[in-house]
Amino acid sequence: MPEFLELLPPQQALKTLLENLPIYVEAEEVAARDALGRVTAAPVMARHPLPSFPRSTVDGYAVRAADTHGASESLPAYLNLVGEVPMGEAPVLSLAPAECALIHTGGMLPAGADAVVMVEHTQSAREEEVEVLRAVAVGDNVLKVGEDVAKGEKVIPAGTRLRPAEIGGLMALGVTQVRVAHRPRVGILSTGDEVVPPDEEIGPGEVRDINTYTLSALVEGAGGEAVRYGIIPDRFTDLQAAAVRALKECDLVVITAGSSASARDLTSRVINDLGEPGVLVHGVDVRPGKPTILAVCREAGSERSKAVVGLPGNPVSALVIAGLFVVPVIEALMGLKVSRPRPAVQARLTLNLASQSGREDWVPVLLTPEKGGYRAEPIFGKSNLIFTLARADGLLRIPPDATGLGAGEEVKVYLF
Amino acid sequence: MPEFLELLPPQQALKTLLENLPIYVEAEEVAARDALGRVTAAPVMARHPLPSFPRSTVDGYAVRAADTHGASESLPAYLNLVGEVPMGEAPVLSLAPAECALIHTGGMLPAGADAVVMVEHTQSAREEEVEVLRAVAVGDNVLKVGEDVAKGEKVIPAGTRLRPAEIGGLMALGVTQVRVAHRPRVGILSTGDEVVPPDEEIGPGEVRDINTYTLSALVEGAGGEAVRYGIIPDRFTDLQAAAVRALKECDLVVITAGSSASARDLTSRVINDLGEPGVLVHGVDVRPGKPTILAVCREAGSERSKAVVGLPGNPVSALVIAGLFVVPVIEALMGLKVSRPRPAVQARLTLNLASQSGREDWVPVLLTPEKGGYRAEPIFGKSNLIFTLARADGLLRIPPDATGLGAGEEVKVYLF
Repeated sequence: MPEFLELLPPQQALKTLLENLPIYVEAEEVAARDALGRVTAAPVMARHPLPSFPRSTVDGYAVRAADTHGASESLPAYLNLVGEVPMGEAPVLSLAPAECALIHTGGMLPAGADAVVMVEHTQSAREEEVEVLRAVAVGDNVLKVGEDVAKGEKVIPAGTRLRPAEIGGLMALGVTQVRVAHRPRVGILSTGDEVVPPDEEIGPGEVRDINTYTLSALVEGAGGEAVRYGIIPDRFTDLQAAAVRALKECDLVVITAGSSASARDLTSRVINDLGEPGVLVHGVDVRPGKPTILAVCREAGSERSKAVVGLPGNPVSALVIAGLFVVPVIEALMGLKVSRPRPAVQARLTLNLASQSGREDWVPVLLTPEKGGYRAEPIFGKSNLIFTLARADGLLRIPPDATGLGAGEEVKVYLF
Repeated sequence: MPEFLELLPPQQALKTLLENLPIYVEAEEVAARDALGRVTAAPVMARHPLPSFPRSTVDGYAVRAADTHGASESLPAYLNLVGEVPMGEAPVLSLAPAECALIHTGGMLPAGADAVVMVEHTQSAREEEVEVLRAVAVGDNVLKVGEDVAKGEKVIPAGTRLRPAEIGGLMALGVTQVRVAHRPRVGILSTGDEVVPPDEEIGPGEVRDINTYTLSALVEGAGGEAVRYGIIPDRFTDLQAAAVRALKECDLVVITAGSSASARDLTSRVINDLGEPGVLVHGVDVRPGKPTILAVCREAGSERSKAVVGLPGNPVSALVIAGLFVVPVIEALMGLKVSRPRPAVQARLTLNLASQSGREDWVPVLLTPEKGGYRAEPIFGKSNLIFTLARADGLLRIPPDATGLGAGEEVKVYLF
């Protein structure tokens, strides 16, 4: 399959990949306290209602609302104080007409009570008597049983990434173990005869391996587990052997090509040989990242098809493209369904940016706070150098249908 | 110090806390490959330039630019092909006038060459001869030594949180070990006689501990290390003993009060007794979270002052307030200086929201995509229930100077 016969727009390229990728979400049980960032593999149901008992939302007095009817500053309702509701226990006292009990925020309503009067709306001239200065209706300042969650309610759907708030919800319900998708293993292979490991001194013509580590960090941040296969020599048999092994051991394989055309061609031939259906997309209408390869391969003898992504060797291209294609595949493999907005800020572009119609562009920008938002200043470089990205706060997207963006225009900058 | 004598606006409250907190950034050395999310404790300098040799940015032919002067489709420049530049090595060949060499993207320029002609702008009628169809200037399609980074340049300032791009930059320079701030230890204490551990069945009047786990997750996400001290009985001596121990063992102590006024009062007395200067802020003009306590305490005999934050017992209040005060203290303790925009999206409010002037409000909202952005729908509840937050996509801020927001207004929603 020759390079770039037809360039697909990024969204369509991703759609093609995901449509051809059967998803099997593998699940495991983990402690809820350690489940931050994991994705639920089954819905979580409430075993009991929340609150599980009628609770006061204020500090004050538990009353029968009818006893406060017509009460006001000038004509208070006089109630007998019959006790105090202890925290953390069911009160043993109960209210008869014209009686009240001291209650604290979070305390359980005693039998007979149906509302709470805030302490600010009471006064006490004599011991064991409370003057209520304002009427309350039934249910005032009370959380009913099940007001947050009903028994049996689905509180967290399958496919939800757990944030601190969800972890709190699990704890509230006593769900200390939770079924989550296992972290997809992402095999990362670097190629390129010019590439050496980062701990080696470089000679003339050599560059250190960046992609293995930027991609590992991206994969881990997205919820995957990075499996590093190192730098593979630019020879068909070597790359094929490493790719076959990675395909067997991982849920997704990412290969970054060397920077030369022949190295890219080698990567594409190796990927296409990994199994059916093979390369689905070769060339995406995006800058940076045109020479991207998207494939689905089923090894001979295996029942499982896996995604294989061939990334450009340039470190900036590789990282931008991995954000567009590798992260969504990781999310799909975890069964992520509840999608949250991608972190972004609105900003005002500082200068004109040209773009080719039909092509989607991603431009590194620096954000500077200004009144009402941010100023987005594109960072240019002759080529896509890694520190161009390290200096940037985010990436500006120029959509395919635009021929550019004008200075002063409001743009959306995605944080990375 | 009685509750709520003076309510400080959140920004001023945080300023007061940070101004009274001496910062000692403790540093440690970690492998760069494992440093995602860590904050640099020292600037990173480039030991050598990047690129370290002149590199081609395209596939084509290395040339002497002068030899292509005036070349065009109708009048090509004819150059002798003297060889191919190998990847990953210094080329042994060098160019004399009217000579060229095949070069790949990322290849090192041979001696004598000062530009590269793209292969698309050449043709080859005879072997060992290349016809150049377009003139190039000196430096065209070449990355100069040091074009990304000069030798000795400060490439990453101290106080930068490392993202995948920075990790890539470290690798490019061969910096495999990096000096980062140690992860601040954050002691988390829960109080409240009604609170039981999440793995226990709850009786009437009891609720499970949510705050320990939501706060742990928030702390870990912000770069801290959560140290859980569990649920402390609502007795002065017990809470004092636990707080003294946490102050000794941690860099920052967070205590969530029980929900009753007396439990809040207990927390405030314990914090004030921990050491000088003690409670700085008691009561913040924010909803939820008014009963927040901010303190700096120096234990007798110790030289180190530490921040102590007293949070409301309500889980939603505690989590919102921890985002406003605990996260910034963790960032300060790591010496974070390069601040990036907080992830947020612009959205259109679906209904009117009232607020009290002078008070800052944080309202959980659901985001629904609509043309050009999102619709933000506030999630209401009688009290702040944990699943209110779990159902939300983000928090909408009503600034102190606003008396509310109108339906249809453009608002900023912070993702959490």
